[in-house]
Formats: sequence, C-alpha cells, structure tokens
Amino acid sequence: MATGTLAQQLIDAHVVEGRTSPGQEVALSVEQTLTQDATGTLVMQELEALGLDRARTETSVQYVDHNLLQADEKNAEDHAFLRSACRRFGLWYSGPGNGVSHPTHMQRFGVPGKALAGSDSHTCAAGSLGMLAVGVGGLEVALVIAGQPLRLRMPEIFGVRLTGALPPWVSAKDVILEMLRRHGVAGGVGRIIEYHGPGLAGLSAMDRHVIANMGAELGATTTVFPADERVREFLRAEAREADFRPLAAEDGAVYDVTDEIDLSRLEPLIARPSAPDAVVPVREVAGTEVGQVVIGSSANPGLRDFAVAAAAVRGRRVAEGVSFDVNPTSREIFEDLTRMGATFDLIAAGARIHQTGCLGCIGMGQAPAVGQNSLRTFPRNFPGRSGTPEDSVWLCSPETAVAAALTGVITDPRELGDAPQVVLPDAASVNTAMLVPPPAEPVTEQLVKGPNISALPELDPLPSRLSGPVLVKAGDDVSTDEISPAGARALPLRSNIPALAEFSFTRIDADYPRRAREQPGEHVVVGGANYGQGSSREHAAIAPRYLGLRLVLAKSFARIHWQNLVNFGIVPLEFADPGDYDRIEAGDVIEAPGLREALPHEHDITLRNTTRGVDIRARHRLSPRQVDVLLAGGVIPYLATRS
Amino acid sequence: MATGTLAQQLIDAHVVEGRTSPGQEVALSVEQTLTQDATGTLVMQELEALGLDRARTETSVQYVDHNLLQADEKNAEDHAFLRSACRRFGLWYSGPGNGVSHPTHMQRFGVPGKALAGSDSHTCAAGSLGMLAVGVGGLEVALVIAGQPLRLRMPEIFGVRLTGALPPWVSAKDVILEMLRRHGVAGGVGRIIEYHGPGLAGLSAMDRHVIANMGAELGATTTVFPADERVREFLRAEAREADFRPLAAEDGAVYDVTDEIDLSRLEPLIARPSAPDAVVPVREVAGTEVGQVVIGSSANPGLRDFAVAAAAVRGRRVAEGVSFDVNPTSREIFEDLTRMGATFDLIAAGARIHQTGCLGCIGMGQAPAVGQNSLRTFPRNFPGRSGTPEDSVWLCSPETAVAAALTGVITDPRELGDAPQVVLPDAASVNTAMLVPPPAEPVTEQLVKGPNISALPELDPLPSRLSGPVLVKAGDDVSTDEISPAGARALPLRSNIPALAEFSFTRIDADYPRRAREQPGEHVVVGGANYGQGSSREHAAIAPRYLGLRLVLAKSFARIHWQNLVNFGIVPLEFADPGDYDRIEAGDVIEAPGLREALPHEHDITLRNTTRGVDIRARHRLSPRQVDVLLAGGVIPYLATRS
Repeated sequence: MATGTLAQQLIDAHVVEGRTSPGQEVALSVEQTLTQDATGTLVMQELEALGLDRARTETSVQYVDHNLLQADEKNAEDHAFLRSACRRFGLWYSGPGNGVSHPTHMQRFGVPGKALAGSDSHTCAAGSLGMLAVGVGGLEVALVIAGQPLRLRMPEIFGVRLTGALPPWVSAKDVILEMLRRHGVAGGVGRIIEYHGPGLAGLSAMDRHVIANMGAELGATTTVFPADERVREFLRAEAREADFRPLAAEDGAVYDVTDEIDLSRLEPLIARPSAPDAVVPVREVAGTEVGQVVIGSSANPGLRDFAVAAAAVRGRRVAEGVSFDVNPTSREIFEDLTRMGATFDLIAAGARIHQTGCLGCIGMGQAPAVGQNSLRTFPRNFPGRSGTPEDSVWLCSPETAVAAALTGVITDPRELGDAPQVVLPDAASVNTAMLVPPPAEPVTEQLVKGPNISALPELDPLPSRLSGPVLVKAGDDVSTDEISPAGARALPLRSNIPALAEFSFTRIDADYPRRAREQPGEHVVVGGANYGQGSSREHAAIAPRYLGLRLVLAKSFARIHWQNLVNFGIVPLEFADPGDYDRIEAGDVIEAPGLREALPHEHDITLRNTTRGVDIRARHRLSPRQVDVLLAGGVIPYLATRS
Repeated sequence: MATGTLAQQLIDAHVVEGRTSPGQEVALSVEQTLTQDATGTLVMQELEALGLDRARTETSVQYVDHNLLQADEKNAEDHAFLRSACRRFGLWYSGPGNGVSHPTHMQRFGVPGKALAGSDSHTCAAGSLGMLAVGVGGLEVALVIAGQPLRLRMPEIFGVRLTGALPPWVSAKDVILEMLRRHGVAGGVGRIIEYHGPGLAGLSAMDRHVIANMGAELGATTTVFPADERVREFLRAEAREADFRPLAAEDGAVYDVTDEIDLSRLEPLIARPSAPDAVVPVREVAGTEVGQVVIGSSANPGLRDFAVAAAAVRGRRVAEGVSFDVNPTSREIFEDLTRMGATFDLIAAGARIHQTGCLGCIGMGQAPAVGQNSLRTFPRNFPGRSGTPEDSVWLCSPETAVAAALTGVITDPRELGDAPQVVLPDAASVNTAMLVPPPAEPVTEQLVKGPNISALPELDPLPSRLSGPVLVKAGDDVSTDEISPAGARALPLRSNIPALAEFSFTRIDADYPRRAREQPGEHVVVGGANYGQGSSREHAAIAPRYLGLRLVLAKSFARIHWQNLVNFGIVPLEFADPGDYDRIEAGDVIEAPGLREALPHEHDITLRNTTRGVDIRARHRLSPRQVDVLLAGGVIPYLATRS
C-alpha cells in the first residue's frame, strides 16, 4: 500500500470518517467548492430543497462559463437565477465573461493543501497547485456547501515520475496525451495520479493544470502535483504569494502503481476522432486536410498556450479555408494577451476571437461541418460533443493546432522552424471586475426564477419488485455526453429536467425518450465497460430517472456517474461475468424481484432475463449509506427521512 | 420635381430604361453587388438556377457575417457552400470573422458614384460615400450579378439640410434617431434621402454610414451623402484615395420634400421598445434599470463608435449585474481598436468581447432575459428580433449605451462629465487575410452542398381563379422579422426552404405553418400599413409561398418586401379604401375570380369576401413586366419561359 505520497497526506489531512485503504468509503472535509452554470443551476435548486441558510464552506464559487451563447432568453435567465442564488446562499459569483471556472479558480482561489469539490469533471485541474480537487455530481457539491463531508471510495495512488525536459514544440498537452496513449480512458479509474520527479522543474503551474485537467480523461479520481517553487511563482504572479505553502511527497514515498515519462523523448501527439485515447504521433497523420482549428478550453487555458499560438502566427496568415477560432479562457488572460500584443497578432493573422468561456468545448458554437477535420486544444472529442453529428474532432497542443492553422493540413509543428520564444509577464493583471463576493451578511432575497427554472422532480422510494424492459443497450466507454448531451440545443435546458429529459440517450437512440415516456413502469439500461465516462453532469442520472430509469447494469462504471446514479435512486449493478453482457438484448425484460430486500445484505444480486429465460449474476459496490440512499429513492428523500 | 440633386445625378448616370420621374419603373445598370450569408445562400442557388457562368458585374462580394454561432453543422456547411459558389461564379469571398458586410464593403470596395445592389436592407449604408446603394431581395441581386439591370420604382428626393455641429456626447446615431422621431418608420417610403448643408463638415464618412444605414428604418429606397473631403479622408485612410471622386448636388438643387436639422440643438435620443421610431430624449427615461448593453452592428460600426465607448470606460468598471457586450464589426476595426489600446480598456472594464460579425443584431446570441432592458447601438428593435419573446430592446448611440453600462440604469451620457477625446489613427490597418479574390480564370468546380442546402421550390403559374382563406390578419408595420424570423433557430435554415417555412409568421401566430400545410389550395394574408418593413430577406416571400400563400392584401407595403412578393409569384394588392381592412377577419374566404385575366389590364381589382358576402376594392402598382412575372409564378419561371 502507498505510503508517504502527497495524495495520502492530503487525504489524511481531510479525512473525518472511514479507513483510507483503497476501495473503502472515506468521508473528507472540504474547504472549497466550484460550480459552473451548466451543473450549478441544479445545485442551487438542490440547496433550496435542502433548506440551506448559508454556505458552510470557506470558499464556494459559482462560475458562469458554459451557457454564453444566449440564443434565446434561457441563458440570461439562468444567469439571473445563479446571481440571486449566490446572494441568497453566500457564494462568490463569477459572471458571464469572467472566465472558465478551472483557470479562474486556480488564479483567484487555489490554495495548496486545501480540498476542493466541484460539479465539473475537470475540477481535478486544481491538483496543479497541490490541492485535493475532485469532480463530483452536483448533489455532492450541494451537500459539501451545506457542511457535509465529501464521500469517496478511497483510490489507489498512481505515481508518475517525470524526468528530462520537453523538447521545442512539445508541451504539457503532449504529456497527458502520452498518458492517454499508454493507459487509455479507463487507465486512471479508482486512482489518484501523482506526478513527481525532476522533470517537474520545467513545468509551470499552468502546464501542470493542462496535465491535471485531463486526468479526467484517464478516469482518475484526481491528479496531484507538489506545491513547489513553480507554484509559488504562479501565486506570486497572481498577487497571492501569502497563500503558498510547500507540499510534496516524502522522500522514498511508495506508490500503488508507478510509471515514468522521460519528457525529453516526447514528440507532438494528437488524439484522432473520436476518443481522447486514440493518440498517435502527429507525424503519422501529417498532411490530413483541416477545416477548423480551435484554441482554448480548460485543457489549455494558460496565457502561454495562447501566447505561443500568437507568436507562431506573427506576421503570417492563416491558410485560406481554415477557420482559426480562439477562445480566451479568462478575462485576466485575455487582458494580459492584449497587453502583450498577442491579441493583435492573432487578429492580424486571421483568427476569429471569441468571447471568454468554454464555448466550443461543450458544443456551444463553433460546430464544424460534417466530416470536416477540426483540431482542438480541448480535453474531449467524444462523438457529437462538438454539436455536429458525425464530427471529426482531434485533440492536440496549441503548437500542433497552430501549425495546422498556418498550413491547412495536420503538420508536425517542428516543421515550422525555430520554436517561438514567449516571454510572459511576471505579474498577471488581476482584475476582479466580474467577480462578485458573497454579501457580508446573509441576504434573504427571493431566488430569481425565470419560467425555464423548473422544480426538481419528486423521487419515490425503490419498489420491492423491480421489473422492466431494457430500453438501451450501450457499448463500452459511453460518455455522459451520449447519455445527456450538452450543446447549443440541450444546454439551455439544464435547469428544466422535464424538457432536458427529451434529449436523453438521443445520440445513441433517438427514440429512447418516447419509448421511456410510454413505458408505464420502470425500465433498465445495459452498458459496457467504463459506462458514464466524461462530464460530471448529474443530469445524465436525473433526466433518465425522470423518464423511469431505475436500474443500470454495466461491465463497469466511471466514478462520478456511478455516484450520480446512486444519488438519484438508480441502482448501478455490474455483471459478475462480463460475458453475460451478450445474454441481454435491447427489449428484453429484466426482473429483480427481491432487490430492495437483497441490497442491504448481499453484494451479489441475481437478475432474471424473463424474455430469454436466463439468470444474470450481478453485484454492487455500494456502501451501507449508499444502499440506504437507493432505498429512499435518492439523496434528497434520504435526507428528508432522516431529518 | 427635383432637379440638380446628387441622387438624380447618380440615377441619370445609371439609368438604362424608363423615365426618371417619381413612381415610374426605371432600370439601372449596377457595377457592384453585396450579399451576406443569411440571404446569399439563396442567391447562389438562384445563380445556379439561372445557369450563370460568371458574374458580369465589376465587383460582387459575398460576405459571411450573420450565421457565425455554429451551433450545429449547418453554419459551417453554408460557409463551405458560399466559398465554393464564389469560386464557381467569380465573386469575392469575405470569410466568417472578416466582418459585417456594410462597413467592410465601404472600407474595401466603396467607390463614389458607383451603384451597388445588395441583398440586405442596410446596403444603403454605402450612400455615405456618394454611392447609389440599394437593398433589394436576393433574386434582384442574382439578376444584377447575371448582368441584368436593377428595376426600381423611381423615388422622390427628400433633401435634409444639416447645419451646426453636434454637441459633446451627441453623435451620428442621434441624427438618425431624430429623423425617426420626426418622420417614423414609413417616413422614407418611396424616397431617397439626400443629406446636404454645412453641418456635413463635422460628420466623418463613418458617421454618415450610421445615418445612411438606418435610412432603412425610415423605409427609404436609399440615402445619399456627397463625396467630399471627409470621404477623401476616409478613402485615404483605407489606402484607396485613387478611388475618390468629388460628387455633390448642384448649387440651388431642388428637392421634392425637404427638412432641416440643426445638429447643435440635438440631444441624446433613444428608441423605446419595440419600434425604431419610438424615439424620446434619453433624459425622459433616465433611471430605468438595464440588464444588458450591446455595442456593435452595421448601425454603429466605426472605429470611433467602439473607441468612444472604450475611452468612456477607461479606468472604470461596468455596473454589477449588467452584461456589457461588444461586437467588433470588422477585423480591420478590431485590429485598430487593439492597436490603439481600446480593446484592453474594454476588457479591463468588464466587457464581453464577441467575435466579429452581426451576432446579436439578428438574434444570433446575446438574447436578453424576458423583460430585461437591453440597450443596443443596433438599427432595429422589432419585437422578438433579439431572440427573446417579449424582449425589451432600446436603440441608442454608443455614448448612451456606455453610460448605462457604467451606471446600470438608463443615463443621459452628458451626466458622465467631460466627453472623451478620441484620436483615431490616420491610416487604418488594411488587412485582407480573410478576403479571397475571385479566381482569375473561371472555375468549373462543383458547388459544395451539404445536406442542409435544399433545391429551390418549384413555382407554378398564377391560376385563373384564386380563392382561399385568410390565414393571418396582421396589423401595421409588420416586419419581415415577424414574417420569417432570423435568430439562432431559424437562421441556419435559410438555405433550406421547406425547413425554414415552419417558422413563417410564428411570431404572430404559432399555428400558421400547420394550417397552411393542411389547407389544400392557396391562401391569403391581410396586412396593415407598411407591411413587410425591415430586412430584405426574400425568405419572407418564398417560405410562405412554399406553404401556399398567393395573395397579400395590405393597406400599404414596404418597398423591398413588395418586390420580393412579386418575384416569388405572390400578388400584392392594396386596399382602395383602407377602411375595408375592418371588413375582413382571419378565416374569411377571399375570392379573386378573374385575377389572372384582370391584372394585365386593370389596376383596380375587385375581391369578394364570400364569408361575409361583401366586395373589397383593391388595386395594384405593378409594372407590365411585374404582371408578367406574377402570371408566370415568379421571376425564375418567367425567365425560363422567355429563354
């Protein structure tokens, strides 16, 4: 078992309940929370349902970064609702245009050693500062805001030793793409990834953010980096050096799993459509025609990432026929970019500069044409996430992206000649104009609820006899983008579950919502391995639950979605024998006669496929508390019965 | 009758057919065309239907400025289609992100004395350079590109003499708002507005653009300004002084109608929701709470308009709770703004800087919440055009807009203290990176048609007996935004008439498309005065025609829409007695038994309201050519029968 690791130190400093050995449920005290608008509207509705008076955390920040297109009145109404909720519950409000949550939180609130729970799967990015930062479902965050501990299944510690220094034209994104190439999208499941070793010296805090952020794509519980001089440097530039404290693994720390990367041997890498782990060297796909290049998102959010692109295009022109889209990630970064002349260079070369925010990364605009290759510095390229069905999205570094923008084809950036030398300012422009502190005194004002802000659906207890048809049979690595899509049509409905439910599973089966609505009782979904990877959105649980989903049977689950299913009263079971996956087809009726009675006592559950007349052995990994939650129908009724 | 006016000189220089006395149809040769993407996709389909080989004009430019959100694959597919059509037909291609058509055309292509036809109602903005610039339906532009003359009903000339100089905090927008206050949205119908007098000396070419642009809101055929030293100055800054030639009215020119504005007596004005002519002094509505402020659009497109806003916010902060949205109008202007430090000042104060383009002006994003007051420097505030039903959009100058952004309430900008002194660079950055010239040699490449690019609907000849129900009875000043809305949902369907048709009239009557589809034969729409004002979109004719609309009976028509109705085979008739408007209700069946036979011979047509058993006297103002077009079913079948 791991000893002396930084991850272990961080957990030990926060544990309030449970044993910290892998697989056990532990409860952690948490000082900070982060919510964004696409998940935060539901969190605020949950705080209301929980009857919260005022946040019990040290720092809770509500960001508005996802829903910025404002194609109709719904986005602006969400913004007004969130702003009123921040006043009501005593949270910080980062308004639309202030920036993407992860880099903004790092810049303004990140503190080494603190724990952060966020209703966004990329919350783990704050591990770049030596924080224990975990992406979870919105309801988990609501509970933390209400003063409860965060419950996690204790992960293994995966130590990755970095040596050497990155060659020219190779950057942090290539490090995490190498991790994805080696370990795949489930390579981090049940693990905290801890980077250590001499190679760290060459990686700035924002470089580490790139690597920590996309730990989510490995399925990791989180990622941690030590808080060293590079972190001090970052906090100093943000005028917060006082928040620095050094943190590192002990000498001779032992990890449960280990790997090593010699940074000097990395080359530019790229993930092919449509999986973050379909990674190949850029040179292997060089020459492929490109129609769009996008720079931005929390996966490459730093000033450096934009400045290097600007330096590479200075005095050159973007290739004819390529849309070169630039999404600055925070107003602070956009201000610095503009001050240093990089914004000018980008515009002059032919870039389309978009407003500050997530935008294309969650399918809010910038959708490519069908079949058009789009190179993006984003974290994810799940099918259709761009807003285009049959999209062709590749993931890469800003260097690789800009090389394609200049040539019109995928190009190894090393072919551009000497790498640009980028000198960043010692001090960032610290600008809090759009960051509203919580009111000093509690405010009892009403929440501003536009007509699109619906009430949370009622959740009834688990019935003793569960029986229903399999309405969807999904494959491996299905993401929450496929269960409850983001994008310009669905995202504005995130605070309106009945309306949003009509998008559930439609990327896999357009007819699911109708069948689910017409099915009188409960129904079942069958999944493959790593079911529910990707985004933390609890909508992927609550929306199908609203339509009658009560049981998901899969080969394995991604961490956050598994927890979200429990939180909204959907039973997550795993095949005891993965081969049984082939003994169930869509339309089969599954019965679990004594489920309610069995769950508290048995980890092995036998289901009956009544259509085929076969038994299916399944099991669960639920804690006793989680079983009680399921029996009650979800966390909210569970807490109601206990109060 | 007018003599010696500049407008008359411009028309005389271009007339190829007809008598230039008011009300007569004249045919004009035209050197330049402008199309934008929201109307241009149809123009390119029309060029294809016309079998065009290569453009016959001196300069034809296809701009992409409307459909930039790319919420799904349709926008990007339109861009690829337009790019291929430019190569195929020999047009300039101004790619997405290069800028709004009107200021960009003025900067790069505007030449005093030339005629310009554009499939955008604000094409008239180029009158700022002494051009004869007319917004028309897309099919008219297609015919001009194909070498045919532009046909117009000869307007009166409305001379507006300007004296004095604008006071501090008052700018060009207040001049055109004053015109709207005095004359209303139909005050320019059947007229060219010609500005002259000593007050011109204080108005730059871009200031004149503001005034000429919103001549469309007065319903004017176009607006002209002389080409004087201020125009030379503009062209010099754009490195095109060689294109300058002086043009002015003769001394002692006589106008059909006249007015005079003493600029020194103007004060900040604002148009209340939801009509451009609901103009009041800002001080009368001061203190009204504001949730959004937007600066941009072709109505205030100049470097000055953004620079003055930037100077006003320098060192200050936008009021908490106000979204301050800035839409740079062209990349050239954005580049200059950035170079002069204004972009920095805007970001630092809390502005959300959006990509270059039309955006919020045509409801592509930035929709406010229901009931939230939004102050915009835009040209139009027709109901719902913002993308929000029951919106509350006000129109004003950048000065008035920025005052509200700083205070959070409508504020007379004169209360901000000394007016900012803005020094503009002598030379603009001329950057043609995103402006692709037509190929030197004809290119026979295939048009790139994504699945959303439908074929044009077939148009059958006018039947001899027309009879059908009134499916919509509309009021006065109905805009084409209400007949065929823009906005984020409908605009991506502009190249797909069957899909777009489902949005027809839905702002007035959500059920119209269903009733029209289910109605077996033709149907009728009844309108009030100034029917079809606003945008030039011919979709407001072709989409309802696709659903069976064949006759519109109104008190009066806006110029462009009237022509579009004819072009797509819908008979536009006016009430002989406007009081008869009250003798028809929605659902009544109207018969026009001998319409086909009567149109060529009679200007007076008697219709029968068979539901109420009353006759309705109507009349038409169609030229013999237009009658032939109507009998054939529209311009395309008309040309086919003649070839």
